[in-house]
Amino acid sequence: MIAARNLTVGCRKLLSTSAYTVRSHTCDELNASNKNEKVSVMGWLSHKRMDRFFVLRDAYGSVQAKIQENSELKQLLKELPYESVIRVDGTVVDRGENRNNKMKTGDIEINVEQLTVLNKASVNIPMLPDVKSNEKTRLKYRYIDLRSDKLQRYRLQLEDDILVSLYRALRIRSEFVHNLRKFLVEKSGFVDVDTPTLFRRTPGGATEFVVPAPPPNHGMAYSLPQSPQQFKQLLMVGGIDRYFQIARCYRDEGSKGDRQPEFTQVDVEMSFTTQEGVMQLIEDMILSAWPESLIHLKPKSPFPRISYSEAMTKYGIDKPDMRVSWQIEDVKTNIFNFLKKNDGDKIRVIVCRGAGKTPISNSTKDEWKRLIQMNENGRNFAICHPSHKTWFKSLKNEKILEEFGLTEEDALVVCWGESDGVYWTLGQLRNYVAEICGLRSKNVVTAHWVVDFPLFSFEEGHLVSTHHPFTAPVDKDKEMLYDEDNDRLLQITGQHYDLVINGVEMGGGSIRIENSEMQRHVLKILSEPTEEMEHLLNALSHGAPPHGGFALGLDRFVAMLTSDGNPLTPVRDVIAFPKTKNGKDLMSDAPTTLSKKQLERFVKQNLNELIKF
Amino acid sequence: MIAARNLTVGCRKLLSTSAYTVRSHTCDELNASNKNEKVSVMGWLSHKRMDRFFVLRDAYGSVQAKIQENSELKQLLKELPYESVIRVDGTVVDRGENRNNKMKTGDIEINVEQLTVLNKASVNIPMLPDVKSNEKTRLKYRYIDLRSDKLQRYRLQLEDDILVSLYRALRIRSEFVHNLRKFLVEKSGFVDVDTPTLFRRTPGGATEFVVPAPPPNHGMAYSLPQSPQQFKQLLMVGGIDRYFQIARCYRDEGSKGDRQPEFTQVDVEMSFTTQEGVMQLIEDMILSAWPESLIHLKPKSPFPRISYSEAMTKYGIDKPDMRVSWQIEDVKTNIFNFLKKNDGDKIRVIVCRGAGKTPISNSTKDEWKRLIQMNENGRNFAICHPSHKTWFKSLKNEKILEEFGLTEEDALVVCWGESDGVYWTLGQLRNYVAEICGLRSKNVVTAHWVVDFPLFSFEEGHLVSTHHPFTAPVDKDKEMLYDEDNDRLLQITGQHYDLVINGVEMGGGSIRIENSEMQRHVLKILSEPTEEMEHLLNALSHGAPPHGGFALGLDRFVAMLTSDGNPLTPVRDVIAFPKTKNGKDLMSDAPTTLSKKQLERFVKQNLNELIKF
Repeated sequence: MIAARNLTVGCRKLLSTSAYTVRSHTCDELNASNKNEKVSVMGWLSHKRMDRFFVLRDAYGSVQAKIQENSELKQLLKELPYESVIRVDGTVVDRGENRNNKMKTGDIEINVEQLTVLNKASVNIPMLPDVKSNEKTRLKYRYIDLRSDKLQRYRLQLEDDILVSLYRALRIRSEFVHNLRKFLVEKSGFVDVDTPTLFRRTPGGATEFVVPAPPPNHGMAYSLPQSPQQFKQLLMVGGIDRYFQIARCYRDEGSKGDRQPEFTQVDVEMSFTTQEGVMQLIEDMILSAWPESLIHLKPKSPFPRISYSEAMTKYGIDKPDMRVSWQIEDVKTNIFNFLKKNDGDKIRVIVCRGAGKTPISNSTKDEWKRLIQMNENGRNFAICHPSHKTWFKSLKNEKILEEFGLTEEDALVVCWGESDGVYWTLGQLRNYVAEICGLRSKNVVTAHWVVDFPLFSFEEGHLVSTHHPFTAPVDKDKEMLYDEDNDRLLQITGQHYDLVINGVEMGGGSIRIENSEMQRHVLKILSEPTEEMEHLLNALSHGAPPHGGFALGLDRFVAMLTSDGNPLTPVRDVIAFPKTKNGKDLMSDAPTTLSKKQLERFVKQNLNELIKF
Repeated sequence: MIAARNLTVGCRKLLSTSAYTVRSHTCDELNASNKNEKVSVMGWLSHKRMDRFFVLRDAYGSVQAKIQENSELKQLLKELPYESVIRVDGTVVDRGENRNNKMKTGDIEINVEQLTVLNKASVNIPMLPDVKSNEKTRLKYRYIDLRSDKLQRYRLQLEDDILVSLYRALRIRSEFVHNLRKFLVEKSGFVDVDTPTLFRRTPGGATEFVVPAPPPNHGMAYSLPQSPQQFKQLLMVGGIDRYFQIARCYRDEGSKGDRQPEFTQVDVEMSFTTQEGVMQLIEDMILSAWPESLIHLKPKSPFPRISYSEAMTKYGIDKPDMRVSWQIEDVKTNIFNFLKKNDGDKIRVIVCRGAGKTPISNSTKDEWKRLIQMNENGRNFAICHPSHKTWFKSLKNEKILEEFGLTEEDALVVCWGESDGVYWTLGQLRNYVAEICGLRSKNVVTAHWVVDFPLFSFEEGHLVSTHHPFTAPVDKDKEMLYDEDNDRLLQITGQHYDLVINGVEMGGGSIRIENSEMQRHVLKILSEPTEEMEHLLNALSHGAPPHGGFALGLDRFVAMLTSDGNPLTPVRDVIAFPKTKNGKDLMSDAPTTLSKKQLERFVKQNLNELIKF
């Protein structure tokens, strides 16, 4: 922690955060060594007391200022609304015995010589930064909420009696992105290329936003792409060997979960590489870019690799939370055979070591049962928890304790029924029980790769890509593509890899199909129309190198970083101006109706053309 | 030049451009020191000769390979289409007397042991990189054009017998942007913040693209912003002290000039600063980010500052090309008085030193006359060029030569008529004559600031912002804002500054109005509806610091850099996937008609709501 602090401070010292401004110092940097110095500091009025003392806050921290007992400025201060922007000219003095240990600048204060009101705030300010307000108010007045410690400033934190400065949200984001770029550009020779966002629609692109085209293209529209996938592959065909972009992407998913209609991904693509090459690159990139102030969360390299089938068999999910060590186990004896109903039914268990210490109420269990049975994969289960006197009518608790070597501190989850569903159900319960035991809020970051996914999956009666139609099969399975048997096709392994952190998929990538004919064949298997993709199919036939890449969900990753490893932190906490779940910007009230001119230009003239389709 | 070369090479050495790939070297890096080494290189087949020799090209350069006289590979090579992607495994040998001095790797070649076809190109490839093709073909097959030296690779250039590697287009762009970020983040403490592109429409935003909103916001639309102007001001209100973003911006201008519907600007904003502070920052930023390989073009600091009125009086234009030294001059005697027609008419001249050496044909002069007289500011003019026997009937040539100290090598442009138009006309002619004399294609970069613009201009009977309604007046003129007299308002000077390079405006910025009431008043003067701007007006009343910023047109700037200072280079030369003047992407054929699903989601359901407005 001392190291982290020094690094942060060291880094700050190199920066001239007051260069090009009219202030002499930022509010966080004054200390006893500035005693008797004349200073000019500027910021927001954040506290006042006894009409003489006040605290000035800026982007970096706070400092106390003091008006002389007999000064006329006392009246000015008294009447000045909080959050007004002021300039203080004065002299730094030692606070001596009145020092405030909880403030970074608490050793000193500024004797005010001049107090200038740069911009008075309204007395009717609707909220104050760092004072609890409801979510709607905070989004509507985002420009006030941005002044809060959480979103912007160093958080001052007392740890082992040392004040630790941690960059928060937007600053961590900026630092992390800059470090990524440094790794990619300076260490690894990648080229930062902007790709268009006004693009053509892609097959099945029902979730793409559309942008009606102005004349001379009336009757047509651009689509905002969900990712630069096609462009990055075209760049490889174009001989740009090593490409990256911090790319704005768009997805119209209405109010589906914690997602924003526009989001950012770290997009990387490389030629003449392998699956292992890309995974190694991404791992090095992430570790190299890890913010210094969060060094205690940094995972170890190499990130473990597990196969999709191993993940499903051991954890019942393709993105297991590795902060939890529990695994799905077979039952080696026939102790639970009374649970089987049909031939082929399976019984699997999870021994939840330590989970006995946390009581689980019956209503919680009922809620889990309800959630699980909403899914077609939901199977019967029982949670053998020490607080229950009897677990099964036909079997004594002691028998079970003995069978699995359980103590009163442990718990056991038993699940039975038709095969795949048993793993799925246990995967869900593993997360639920771990959550309640606090294992999923440990401030730890566990990262690993999930590999060897099936290339195709079966959904609603036909084959779909498990990820996307550009993923290449592994070499040994390439010939199986030309099998006409769906069961054989479903056995093909794709060269896809997912990066999973603390049970959340942070990004994914693949080696792509570089052969035009194979790509055409895969689109045919998927019953995707090729006419929308002729430009890509053509490109692959005009000299396309083998290539592969990766995309990291930046918003989600930074949200995880800034919350000590909690991957479920809302992404809007790390986005300057987020939208609500309903896609609204409450601050500016977007979206809005069209102006008459826009209506004319984009809708009315366009209309007949558009609906001709 | 040697220095530049060493720096580039030095830089390359630090990069492991083959890390994470299966190649051992890139095609440019082999030389005599690799003699006898086993290497694996990959790239595109770009030349072949005598069925045995071929050149392999990748993102970095080229290398020759040689098949043994009796090898079966000769047949393979013979049948292999150009631009196929191949892998060569072999041993580096010295070419001895056969060395090729025009090739960076010309000292060596690779003795091919294994030749693997990674992806065969079609024999019907529609174009070859670096072979002249028409613009349409090059845009349609952009992924082939991207392989050309111009867009991508180092250009190898023989200078003073030294091979100089210059990064081209996309690589210079990437380098410049990365250097900008390093300056802003590492040296100056700026925070990189992403702002939304799905925003609300802005007043008068007739040139904004619209994005129809999906449910539950049917009947409404987002707008794609022309710049993050509002967001960057709101970030300042939010206490983000020093913000920047390499921002994607959108402007629907149809086929107006060399502009793309989406473009990129380097967007910077800072609190507690001054006009001089921002200008100094931007100057330091640009000079600090200047690509090393273009060091010979780097302008000197500080960039000269000239006022708008000085620019107009001396150069007749607010973005004078300073590669040209000629200035507009008054005529101190009454020698030309015979030209005056009305009281108040003015006569001004430009002495074009050296312009006498370049003949100007009568048809060229007639064309200039036509162009100038199309504009309401066009005035009468004469070009006194030594090739003409008689300049004016009423005045002998010798008199004029004597009056202005002209020689046969010089020329004189005389213009007369109503005041403002005389300056405007001379400003145009100064550029025309300089252009024809080659003064505007000098490989030099001259940068300067134009300052002290009027805050308002008069257009079609009412006041408009000379730049935008958020620009603050200079302090001494603030009270004049409350004058009701248009003439007085027109005298107000704004705190705006333009960066002009070689006669083109590369960017502009201003100190903004931070006072809510003043901003409301200015919108009133401009007859702009305030209801569209209430969120910004509110923000300014809830604690807005004084602030100002700048936006640099990145595409234009990089186009100028990569063409040795020619600011008129088309921006599509530095954009990976540009659109045509008609807003079309010829490669993917965007925009396109909507899919049925999109039509349902965005148009049909939306329709009744949208046209209700």
